[in-house]
Amino acid sequence: MQRRSQHERGLTLGELARRHGCELRGQPGVRVHRVSTLARADDGSVAFFLNQAYLNDLRSTRAGAVFLSEPHAPECPVAALVTPNPYRVFAGVADELHELLPPAAGIHADATVSIDASVDATCEVAAGARVAAGATLARGVYVGPNATVGPAARIGEDSRLLANSTVCEGVTMGNRCLVHPGAVLGSDGFGNAPDAGGRWRKIPQLGFVRIGNDVEIGANTTIDRGALEDTVIGDGVRLDNLIQIGHNVRIGEHTAMAAGCAIAGSVRIGRRCRLAGNVGVAGHLDICDDVVLLARTVVTRGIGKPGAYAGSMTPMEEVASWRRNAARFRHLDALHKRVRRLERSG
Amino acid sequence: MQRRSQHERGLTLGELARRHGCELRGQPGVRVHRVSTLARADDGSVAFFLNQAYLNDLRSTRAGAVFLSEPHAPECPVAALVTPNPYRVFAGVADELHELLPPAAGIHADATVSIDASVDATCEVAAGARVAAGATLARGVYVGPNATVGPAARIGEDSRLLANSTVCEGVTMGNRCLVHPGAVLGSDGFGNAPDAGGRWRKIPQLGFVRIGNDVEIGANTTIDRGALEDTVIGDGVRLDNLIQIGHNVRIGEHTAMAAGCAIAGSVRIGRRCRLAGNVGVAGHLDICDDVVLLARTVVTRGIGKPGAYAGSMTPMEEVASWRRNAARFRHLDALHKRVRRLERSG
Amino acid sequence: MQRRSQHERGLTLGELARRHGCELRGQPGVRVHRVSTLARADDGSVAFFLNQAYLNDLRSTRAGAVFLSEPHAPECPVAALVTPNPYRVFAGVADELHELLPPAAGIHADATVSIDASVDATCEVAAGARVAAGATLARGVYVGPNATVGPAARIGEDSRLLANSTVCEGVTMGNRCLVHPGAVLGSDGFGNAPDAGGRWRKIPQLGFVRIGNDVEIGANTTIDRGALEDTVIGDGVRLDNLIQIGHNVRIGEHTAMAAGCAIAGSVRIGRRCRLAGNVGVAGHLDICDDVVLLARTVVTRGIGKPGAYAGSMTPMEEVASWRRNAARFRHLDALHKRVRRLERSG
Repeated sequence: MQRRSQHERGLTLGELARRHGCELRGQPGVRVHRVSTLARADDGSVAFFLNQAYLNDLRSTRAGAVFLSEPHAPECPVAALVTPNPYRVFAGVADELHELLPPAAGIHADATVSIDASVDATCEVAAGARVAAGATLARGVYVGPNATVGPAARIGEDSRLLANSTVCEGVTMGNRCLVHPGAVLGSDGFGNAPDAGGRWRKIPQLGFVRIGNDVEIGANTTIDRGALEDTVIGDGVRLDNLIQIGHNVRIGEHTAMAAGCAIAGSVRIGRRCRLAGNVGVAGHLDICDDVVLLARTVVTRGIGKPGAYAGSMTPMEEVASWRRNAARFRHLDALHKRVRRLERSG
Repeated sequence: MQRRSQHERGLTLGELARRHGCELRGQPGVRVHRVSTLARADDGSVAFFLNQAYLNDLRSTRAGAVFLSEPHAPECPVAALVTPNPYRVFAGVADELHELLPPAAGIHADATVSIDASVDATCEVAAGARVAAGATLARGVYVGPNATVGPAARIGEDSRLLANSTVCEGVTMGNRCLVHPGAVLGSDGFGNAPDAGGRWRKIPQLGFVRIGNDVEIGANTTIDRGALEDTVIGDGVRLDNLIQIGHNVRIGEHTAMAAGCAIAGSVRIGRRCRLAGNVGVAGHLDICDDVVLLARTVVTRGIGKPGAYAGSMTPMEEVASWRRNAARFRHLDALHKRVRRLERSG
Repeated sequence: MQRRSQHERGLTLGELARRHGCELRGQPGVRVHRVSTLARADDGSVAFFLNQAYLNDLRSTRAGAVFLSEPHAPECPVAALVTPNPYRVFAGVADELHELLPPAAGIHADATVSIDASVDATCEVAAGARVAAGATLARGVYVGPNATVGPAARIGEDSRLLANSTVCEGVTMGNRCLVHPGAVLGSDGFGNAPDAGGRWRKIPQLGFVRIGNDVEIGANTTIDRGALEDTVIGDGVRLDNLIQIGHNVRIGEHTAMAAGCAIAGSVRIGRRCRLAGNVGVAGHLDICDDVVLLARTVVTRGIGKPGAYAGSMTPMEEVASWRRNAARFRHLDALHKRVRRLERSG
């Protein structure tokens, strides 16, 4: 979605400090119009210091002001807006100074909307978008170019389906969701029963996908419909790009997954979990609330205790030494037995 | 594709038992209209018991009847349809009670079909679908909204290309295939030759993709065309979502792959193989028939013997202990040598 | 993109030898029209011998001529074109004999081009393509069926955006790039700040994607826009299918990545690196020039020294022995300690 590239009138440092609960060390009447990096900022920009790696950029910044936490304030050569959580404040200030443009109400002449669809007059349906019979688009919905909304799908208020995304039959989505390009919601789950001759017979996938409010779904991510029950994505869930969510999966509120995660069928994941890149979860497992999974972990048993877990990742090394070590992996059980023998004979 | 949500007239338990070779323990005249889970079923639904984890649901179900195997029949509080393979029967009964709607013959006014394409009068070409010159769509083909069919592609009878899928130039596909949204068939393979200066020169990809009958291809899966020969997908193959099939790969009949598998160029995979999630296969390898690969396995040598193989997955543990163990991996070869020294000195 | 399936007039072996610096052992006047495999070639085809595995095909080929290196020339039963680098020559000869067709200038009646877009008269904009306001397409650009070009995007000369690809707002691309179907360039990066209650607040993604010249981007690959700075893909970069490039990533010239790689945010990768399939790189790391990463490696620390690195891949074995070995991984640290104790007591 397009944002206004900068705020014409701007905001004063005094206004910013007041709205975001920061302590201002500088002139309250100075006006800023955009956010920028420390290195590129000019005096019409506000910048943020979040990461020690950028300390030199902080020391040489020409920003109008910098949001940072108390310990770094003495390093700031320009006006400082001191807050315990500069990253969270960043989100709000960037939203204010680079406002998301609202949808331009109307159905493009090159879109196709079924006469049996219900599209609120405030919706924007872009060129090439296809809205099927029985679909419902609530107030303020945006359907991007060449996106498709299937039969009987229901899209909640102010949700946005970006270019080339696909919402299949009967998918329901809450309010203020954001679906990135190429995402597919409601494709058939992977259900196959072998017949006596080793051929696959497709199991019809009769469930739906239900998506809560304030969910963000990344580019080219796929979410399968349930087999009999529904696949359910809770409020506030964040899914990055190229993620696979299998049929019947249920993901609790405010859980976030980085790119490339793959969740097999009928898994339940709790609330506020965080999955790093390329985590895999085997089918039919339960993961409780507040679990953190490090990159590449494969979950093959349920997790009933909050905490951080890892596996399947071994350290990177130069190829020659990796080869020697990896070759030994196949003798790890034998090695244990040899050590045991030594201990007994000792 | 849309299915009828339930069967108006329904089927009697007697009919179901007869058609699917089940032993009925209950009233043959009772009529059911849909399939459902044990937990949600009412007396117009038929349910299935497949998994011990749902034993409590079986004991309290209100279904019209339950398909299950002999050992569990005594636990069933309602009519039982006893069969040695409830999962396979499930596929058939669900198909009967929730019938796939046939394509609605015709080319949508918002579709584009080249005058040099051959489209059978029974095909449905949805809004925004593009069918290029020389393409052939056989009887009963469905091309979904915003799907594209490239020049000289040939799609066999009753095959369905769902929304936003892409079939590139010259791809051929058999009958009764199902291509899910966002899948790409026939993109160029990854062929690059380095020049003397370290720049890449593209190797033209001149082969095609040939897909057999009854193949299912998941959402956002990609299948590359061959470099000189063709990429070949055998009859009855099942590919889940987000899978990569490299150029010149040949996959044997009735092989199935779960989401996220990646098969490098020129690999040959036999018949009836099963690849779990995120398996990788290095280039130019041969894998024989009837091989099972567990999740995350990386195949770096050919497999000539049917059986189950695994690798590259290590158990999940809490982060603190994982860190200690993973750090030791880099000393595994050294550890072997130390043990050997101890054994010799013993 | 469509290529001419073969060259009508053909080229003589003498012409091929001269243009590509090969030594011809055969009749210079013989004419060939296409490239083919050794096994399938007829006397109008030229073939290539690149891989020892195909030695039998070489010995029995009926090709008009074969490109190969000196040591294999004695095995060639037909005319030989001897060169130290048959693979590189292959690229050039295939390009000459199977020429890429130039775009057919014009905007299809079923495309949508904003009156505020700038489209050169030589561009081809296919059916269903959407070009938004402020977008610029330079000379010779091809926009495929149902591809979308967002507001203010700039596409350089002779670049090609294939079917169903998505170029988001403000993305810039150099000349002669090739974007495969389903690729998404410029989706929002994954930026979320937790609020006090554990809810995610979206960080607006205000940067762009800048792509150099001669870049190839694979099917369903995703490249996120920067958060504040830009995501930058250098000249000549090759990205295979289903790759994820996070926000603010910078990739140096002529680096190539195989399918399924995932690069987290703010990573810098040098020039001429080669990443095999499914490599992952954790956020904010720097990788220097000329680094090779084997399949499945997870990079969790910066790499300052050119060379080949590996990790996270352990050998495939039969499931029974894999299970025993993998189970021991969780005791690897304990095993080291036991060995140390034995050594001390020895």
